[in-house]
Amino acid sequence: MTQTAFQRRYETFRSMVDRRLASLVRPGEPRDLRDASRYVLSGGGKRIRAVLTLMACEAAGGSARNAIDAAAAIEVLHNFTLVHDDVMDNSPARRGRPTVHITWDLNTALLTGDLLLGIGYRTLLRGRVLHAERVVRVFTGALLEVCEGQALDLAFERRTDVTVPEYFGMIEKKTAALLSASAVMGALMAEASPRIQSAFRRYGHFLGRAFQLQDDLLDVVADPKDLGKPIGGDIIERKKTFLLLRAVTRAEGEDRDFLIRLLHAEPAAAHAAGSPDRAAADRKHLIGRVTGLYERYGILDETRREISRNTKRALRALAILRPGPSREMLHHLADMLVNRIS
Amino acid sequence: MTQTAFQRRYETFRSMVDRRLASLVRPGEPRDLRDASRYVLSGGGKRIRAVLTLMACEAAGGSARNAIDAAAAIEVLHNFTLVHDDVMDNSPARRGRPTVHITWDLNTALLTGDLLLGIGYRTLLRGRVLHAERVVRVFTGALLEVCEGQALDLAFERRTDVTVPEYFGMIEKKTAALLSASAVMGALMAEASPRIQSAFRRYGHFLGRAFQLQDDLLDVVADPKDLGKPIGGDIIERKKTFLLLRAVTRAEGEDRDFLIRLLHAEPAAAHAAGSPDRAAADRKHLIGRVTGLYERYGILDETRREISRNTKRALRALAILRPGPSREMLHHLADMLVNRIS
Repeated sequence: MTQTAFQRRYETFRSMVDRRLASLVRPGEPRDLRDASRYVLSGGGKRIRAVLTLMACEAAGGSARNAIDAAAAIEVLHNFTLVHDDVMDNSPARRGRPTVHITWDLNTALLTGDLLLGIGYRTLLRGRVLHAERVVRVFTGALLEVCEGQALDLAFERRTDVTVPEYFGMIEKKTAALLSASAVMGALMAEASPRIQSAFRRYGHFLGRAFQLQDDLLDVVADPKDLGKPIGGDIIERKKTFLLLRAVTRAEGEDRDFLIRLLHAEPAAAHAAGSPDRAAADRKHLIGRVTGLYERYGILDETRREISRNTKRALRALAILRPGPSREMLHHLADMLVNRIS
Repeated sequence: MTQTAFQRRYETFRSMVDRRLASLVRPGEPRDLRDASRYVLSGGGKRIRAVLTLMACEAAGGSARNAIDAAAAIEVLHNFTLVHDDVMDNSPARRGRPTVHITWDLNTALLTGDLLLGIGYRTLLRGRVLHAERVVRVFTGALLEVCEGQALDLAFERRTDVTVPEYFGMIEKKTAALLSASAVMGALMAEASPRIQSAFRRYGHFLGRAFQLQDDLLDVVADPKDLGKPIGGDIIERKKTFLLLRAVTRAEGEDRDFLIRLLHAEPAAAHAAGSPDRAAADRKHLIGRVTGLYERYGILDETRREISRNTKRALRALAILRPGPSREMLHHLADMLVNRIS
C-alpha cells in the first residue's frame, strides 16, 4: 500500500467517523447538554482512535463498516476524557476553540462529559452487536485505566520524585490503554482469534507509548505552526515529561541543581513578577536553557531512540498477520502517529 | 409477610449490599481516587435502589444472590450521580459527612465520579452474566436519563415558567428512571418474562414519582430530626417543587403575586443584607409564609393525594405477580419509601 493510498483510506475512514459522530446526540436532549455535546463531537481532530479501530478491523479480515459503532464509541469516550480533563486543567482552549466550561460553565462541562460517556456505551451497543459482553468489558477497562492515568498525572504535578518507570506506568494508562482498546475493538468486530486480539493489544500499547513520547518531544522540537501552540509549554508547566525526568537523572553538577530547582518550583514562579514583556522573556530564556540541557545531555536523541524502540515493538506485534495491504495500513498508521511532524 | 419480617429482610439485603460495595474499589487505584471512592461507597444510607433490585429479583422468582452484582452496580451508579451533583450544587455535606470536593478537591470529585461509573459497569459484568447485553442497555439508559434529569433540574433553576408536566418530566428522568432500572434489573436477573420486566418498569416508575413528591412534601412537613437537615430548604432555594408550582397555579391575588415574586428572586436575596440573626429570622418568616399558603390552598393535601395515586399505580403494576410473600415484600417496600416519616 502506497503512502497516498493510505492517506486516501485514512480520510475515507475519518469522514465515516465524523458522520457517525454527528448523528449520536439526540434532538430531545436538554438544550445546553445537546448543544455542548454536539460542539464537542464536531470539534474535528484526526479521530486517530476511531480510525485505528476501523483499520484494525480490516487488518484482521473484517469489514470496517461492522466496526463503525465501536469506533465512534471509542472516539466519544476519548472526547469525554477531554471535556473533564479540560475542567481539571482549567484549559481555556482545545483545537483552537474555547473549551466547554469556558463556552458554557463548569456544571455543563461536568454533565456533558457524563452524558458523553452514556452516549459512548449506547453507541457501543447500537444495533446487533458481536460479542457484546466482551466489547463492554474492553471499553470499561479502558475507561477505568484512563481515569487512573489522569489521577496519576494530577498526583505527579504535586510530586518532585517521579521516576521514569512511574512515568511509563502513567502514560500506559492515560494514553496507551485507549489506543490498545481501539485496536482490540477492531479485532473483536472482525471476529479475530484471541491470538490476533492479543497482538493488537500489544500493537496499541507500544504505539501509545511511542505516541506519548513523541508528544513530549514535539513540545520542544516542533515548529509552533505545526504544533498549534507555543513551544515549551511542558517546560513552563514543569510537566514531568520523559525528557525532564531523564535530564534530571543524567545531568551533573550545576545543571542538575538547576533542573532539581525547576522541579520544585511552582509553574507560576517563572512569571510571577514584572511586566508581561519581562515574563515572556523569562519564559523564553527558561525554555532555551532547558532545551540546551536536553541537547547537551543527549536527551533528544535518547527520546528519539525510545520512540523508535516502542514503534518497532508495536510493528513486531503485527508479524502474525498475513503480509499484505491491510497489514501495511497499520504500519503506515504507526508511522503517521509517531512522525507527526517531519 | 409481616412488617417485622420485611424489616429483617431489608436489613439482610442492605448488609449484603454494603459488604459487596466495600469490596469494589481495588487496592491498586491511585491513592486519592481509591480513598475518595471508598469514602463515597462506605457512606451508608438506605441502599434503596440496590435493595429494590434484590427484592425485585426474588419477587420475580429468582434468588437474590444472583442479583447482588447488578444491585451493587446500580448503587454505584447512584453514588456517581451524588458525587457529581454535589459538585454542581456546591453542597458541603451529604449524610452528615463533608462531600468529596470539600474533603479532597474539585478534581478528585470529578475523577472519583468518573471512576465510580467505570466501577459500576465493571461490577455489572462481574462473573458470568445473564443477558449481559440487555443489562448494559438498561444500565446505560438509566445513566443517560439521570444526566438529562440533572440538566433539566439545573435549567429549571434559571427559569420562572416551569410547568407541572415539565416538573414530572424532570423527576421521571432524575429520580424515577433509576428506580425503574433497579426493578427491571432484578427481573432480568430472575430471567423473568418480558411481561414481568415491563410491570417492574412501571412499578419503579410510579414509585419514583411518588418518592420524589414525598421528598418535596417532607421538606415542609417533616420533623427536622428525621429529615437530617432544617425544614424549608427547598423554599429558601426557590426550588421548583411540585408544591411551589401547584401553589403558583392555585393562589390568587396578593398571594399569587407574592409567589411569583418569589419565583423570580435569587435565592441569595433573602439573606443578602443584615446580620446572621436577622437573616435566619427572615428565612424562618419566609418558610412560615409559604407553608401557610400551601395549607390555605390545599397544596399539602393535593400532594398527599398525588403521592397516594402514584403509589397505587405502582402497586397495581404488581398485580400480575402471584400473590404471596415476595409480592408483599414489594408492597412493603413501596410503603416504606413513600411513608418515610410516619
